[in-house]
Amino acid sequence: MNQTIETILQHRSIRQFTTEPIEPQKLQLILSCANAASSSSFIQCTSIIRITNPETRAQIAQLAGGQAYVASAAEFLVFCADFFRHKQISPNAQLGFTEQTLIGAIDTGLMGQNALLAAESMGLGGVYIGGIRNNPSKLTELLSLPNHVVPLFGMCLGYPARQPEIKPRLPLSIVVHQEQYQQLDSEELKAYDQHVRAYYAARSSNNKQVSWSEQVSATLDKEARPFMQAYLKRQGFSTR
Amino acid sequence: MNQTIETILQHRSIRQFTTEPIEPQKLQLILSCANAASSSSFIQCTSIIRITNPETRAQIAQLAGGQAYVASAAEFLVFCADFFRHKQISPNAQLGFTEQTLIGAIDTGLMGQNALLAAESMGLGGVYIGGIRNNPSKLTELLSLPNHVVPLFGMCLGYPARQPEIKPRLPLSIVVHQEQYQQLDSEELKAYDQHVRAYYAARSSNNKQVSWSEQVSATLDKEARPFMQAYLKRQGFSTR
Repeated sequence: MNQTIETILQHRSIRQFTTEPIEPQKLQLILSCANAASSSSFIQCTSIIRITNPETRAQIAQLAGGQAYVASAAEFLVFCADFFRHKQISPNAQLGFTEQTLIGAIDTGLMGQNALLAAESMGLGGVYIGGIRNNPSKLTELLSLPNHVVPLFGMCLGYPARQPEIKPRLPLSIVVHQEQYQQLDSEELKAYDQHVRAYYAARSSNNKQVSWSEQVSATLDKEARPFMQAYLKRQGFSTR
Repeated sequence: MNQTIETILQHRSIRQFTTEPIEPQKLQLILSCANAASSSSFIQCTSIIRITNPETRAQIAQLAGGQAYVASAAEFLVFCADFFRHKQISPNAQLGFTEQTLIGAIDTGLMGQNALLAAESMGLGGVYIGGIRNNPSKLTELLSLPNHVVPLFGMCLGYPARQPEIKPRLPLSIVVHQEQYQQLDSEELKAYDQHVRAYYAARSSNNKQVSWSEQVSATLDKEARPFMQAYLKRQGFSTR
């Protein structure tokens, strides 16, 4: 097993960091790695906003639902889908297609993962912050995002203060299908639910008694950021 | 520079493969790496469909706009956003939120990038196939995708028959913004355009005379898969 695969398989989200800053050359490498990801039709539709201002950080931490590590992590990056770049180059660019929202989200995801893995490979850790989508209008104002730019996720990076246990993922037998889509196997799911329950009961902090299926229900049996469709349209995404 | 960062920075899309198959244990590692990516709220909403049937491969190569390597690559995977999994677990799951489309696209992107990097770290190469979105209804039928599942991208993997030059990306000075969104610097863009033009003129195959800005215009001054919004809605995504 090589270092890349080891880094990938050792992933855990880090939410507690030491106060040590990230060396500038390491940060540069992380950003260069983000930038090396594949880009659909070479369109390059991602912008990364690096936030160092403590006041802005505190406001975003608040917006994200009180995630203190957004304020305290050594680095905090906001990853955006950005077609305003192209609108400046080509005023006739036809924007607003739902397909472009997909491209923006997928390609920005690829860049985010490159950045996180580069960081993890150098002994740093990090966590994705989907909570920045809690109040995208406010964030848009705070970061002066023009039309055709939407913030998709944040990323905290820094030196880990502790290494939590690795969270057990769904088995590949459920995630990977052969030739065609296959229905969920209830026996496999049951075994995985027990596995997750045991993980939560035994882990070194924030113990709880819950299976994966119970978590899924708790998360999905309610609305998911119901303002997102209107927000995207206001920003000029998914209007057609 | 460690192996992970080297792998990331050495990325180029591979579209020509040798006939050598991928060893089963390597494929297993690639899939395990995909599965190790972060998951928003631990919702795990990605399914990967592995296609080995030559007839299906040929049909998808056709759908994707005649990309022969979809048929000939050692492995071909279709990455899908999948909330049908959750609907089976929790019939009361509230689906169709645009936010869930974002989560699906971002998280599936993270998994794809883990898979590609794992492959590249072992001497394999690959390419994302966005062209599978050319005719998503047909693909949905072909792969028996139920409602709440949409195919986002394909991935060809195999041993590279040749290593093309690395494509020059936008400079970090354009991609990375400080504190707030910054307008495009036209001087930096001009320099990058010259850089891209020189790269296309000099590369070892498929030479052309075009700048990045010219490519952007050619790509965006026309419709982008205008059927995508209706397709997503039919599959139960972005209905609200």
